[in-house]
Amino acid sequence: MSNIQASLDKTRKEMEAVAITDNIRLGEDDRSIVIIDQVKLPNVLEYKTITDLESAYQAIKKLEVRGAPAIGIFAGYAMYVLSKQDEDLEKEEFLKKFRENREYLNSSRPTAVNLSWALKRMDAVAEDNKEKTVKEILEQLKKEAVSIHEEDIQMCLNICEYGLSLLKDGDGVLTHCNAGPLATSFGTAQGPFLLAKARGMDIRVFADETRPLLQGARLTSFELDRAGVDVTLICDNMASLVMRNGWIDKVFVGCDRIAANGDTANKIGTSGVAILAKHYGIPVYTLGPTSTIDMNCPDGDHIHIELRDPDEIKTMWYEKPMAPEHVKCYNPSFDVTDHTLLSGIVTEKGIVYPPFDVNLKKLFDEE
Amino acid sequence: MSNIQASLDKTRKEMEAVAITDNIRLGEDDRSIVIIDQVKLPNVLEYKTITDLESAYQAIKKLEVRGAPAIGIFAGYAMYVLSKQDEDLEKEEFLKKFRENREYLNSSRPTAVNLSWALKRMDAVAEDNKEKTVKEILEQLKKEAVSIHEEDIQMCLNICEYGLSLLKDGDGVLTHCNAGPLATSFGTAQGPFLLAKARGMDIRVFADETRPLLQGARLTSFELDRAGVDVTLICDNMASLVMRNGWIDKVFVGCDRIAANGDTANKIGTSGVAILAKHYGIPVYTLGPTSTIDMNCPDGDHIHIELRDPDEIKTMWYEKPMAPEHVKCYNPSFDVTDHTLLSGIVTEKGIVYPPFDVNLKKLFDEE
Repeated sequence: MSNIQASLDKTRKEMEAVAITDNIRLGEDDRSIVIIDQVKLPNVLEYKTITDLESAYQAIKKLEVRGAPAIGIFAGYAMYVLSKQDEDLEKEEFLKKFRENREYLNSSRPTAVNLSWALKRMDAVAEDNKEKTVKEILEQLKKEAVSIHEEDIQMCLNICEYGLSLLKDGDGVLTHCNAGPLATSFGTAQGPFLLAKARGMDIRVFADETRPLLQGARLTSFELDRAGVDVTLICDNMASLVMRNGWIDKVFVGCDRIAANGDTANKIGTSGVAILAKHYGIPVYTLGPTSTIDMNCPDGDHIHIELRDPDEIKTMWYEKPMAPEHVKCYNPSFDVTDHTLLSGIVTEKGIVYPPFDVNLKKLFDEE
Repeated sequence: MSNIQASLDKTRKEMEAVAITDNIRLGEDDRSIVIIDQVKLPNVLEYKTITDLESAYQAIKKLEVRGAPAIGIFAGYAMYVLSKQDEDLEKEEFLKKFRENREYLNSSRPTAVNLSWALKRMDAVAEDNKEKTVKEILEQLKKEAVSIHEEDIQMCLNICEYGLSLLKDGDGVLTHCNAGPLATSFGTAQGPFLLAKARGMDIRVFADETRPLLQGARLTSFELDRAGVDVTLICDNMASLVMRNGWIDKVFVGCDRIAANGDTANKIGTSGVAILAKHYGIPVYTLGPTSTIDMNCPDGDHIHIELRDPDEIKTMWYEKPMAPEHVKCYNPSFDVTDHTLLSGIVTEKGIVYPPFDVNLKKLFDEE
């Protein structure tokens, strides 16, 4: 074992003491996937056992499992578990069912890149091993599903360490949305807060509630509070005052897609937080895996912004509608933060500093 | 009648065609106050008849009537109507009851400056006329209550005209919270949009929903939509993207208190909107009466920020709690926008431009 891996294994043990680690796992005899039903958070921490295709489809569609990497991990295990149930079929029939399952799962959330990415990986394994026995194919599928999960864990651990290197005892940090253990094994944007806690550091976190889906209120504040991290929940529009009060030393946010020049798409509201931080002289770091860096996308203007249902703003979560029924809404799920607003991009391979166009390229050239 | 007054009377007729004008009015035989129950908006437009002290107290406390000027107008009418019911009492007893009513109403919302201001005006009238008959005192009380209302109307009409002078056909304007006819007879921050509509101008308004109390979603979008103004509702954290999209030419916001140097306290989130606007090169105007300018307050650091109940963030409006029960919340109701972020302050006496410390002083010196 290398020194680096030994060190990461130590980090992993520290993280396991504070983070939720059983968000997605294989059930008994590999016959099911057991997940935390995120729709029920923060009121109830409830595990749900998924045993069939339709439940797996609905789990993704209804956001019972959410967060791009978590969806990928879930999809890997789901493909394996569903195939395992077909182990007595003839191989041709087995592979036919495999492809049907894959197609159907892939339609559960068409815009989730990690979903189709994980399904493609599982598919490649089935294709590459199609001359082998069903039993052998199943072994390879399990190995691949575990790999998808394990790679995510290693990525998170590295990001947690690099992110933590930017924090010092007593820091106040503002964060937006959720990129913690519920979204990606040990967390990206919020992982370093958990690692800081595990190491006895005092970090005060301010979590934007993140309208309209309230990931900050429902998930981030739940995860951090549960781990004993000092977390304060605020409405998105309170970030400016919190910064003006002098409570924020750094901003940590996640990312969904990074263009070649460093422009970064993340949950709606991120660009606003970054502009406020610049105004108040506070550094902003985006944390995410190198897989979110798209060197074929030159800049933020080339990132498509998904528009979602107005009812997420007007009626979702509420006892009664909170806006007139026919009033227009604009409900973009992401925005683009200009690279000039970022102090650094924290990846599993290290922290990338400006000029991002040069240094992001270097990150890949060194491979 | 002066030309100015004739012109304002014309404005008034135009506004009456588009704005809600019966938010607060005297009921039949001056025996009641009839209000729109704002708690039920935007789902139901329901009028509520207030006939007794306890209902008047609860109407303010439960925000059935809200918006600083509206509370003042309501309090004036309430004092008159309640006194009218005591018209058969001996004068000493009448005045005693008057004072008891005033004390009790004043305790309904201790931080509402306009409430105590209106009650003091009514009280001064009772005191100044205490040698007269009960009937004569009642006449003076009615006159004063109508004056409080009428002064607010004239103030709004002037602000609507000055505000409209800043807009041109086709403008996109972002606004925050509610300062329309539900809050103050014809509106301050949102009044010019209604006047623009009345004059056939095409203004596209983007309304922040304004967490946690959702005044933008529940009230502003309701008022503007009802008048046929082109309004789009957004979450507070979408303002940055809407500006980046190039859709916003101006920002119009209200104000609760303006310091002598132009620093402005308004609904939480206003300072964030102003910082975003500066980043994108968009002018920001604050609209409000000169009564909100406090020349004894040197700057924003001297404005006290009221903190409110965490449940407004965690549970209010929702079917189920949206954050863990014991997670800390920071819930300030206002923030302070630095005067350097403002392009102008629109008052009933005209538009004040920088340098605000000099020009606000001039505004009062000219009186």
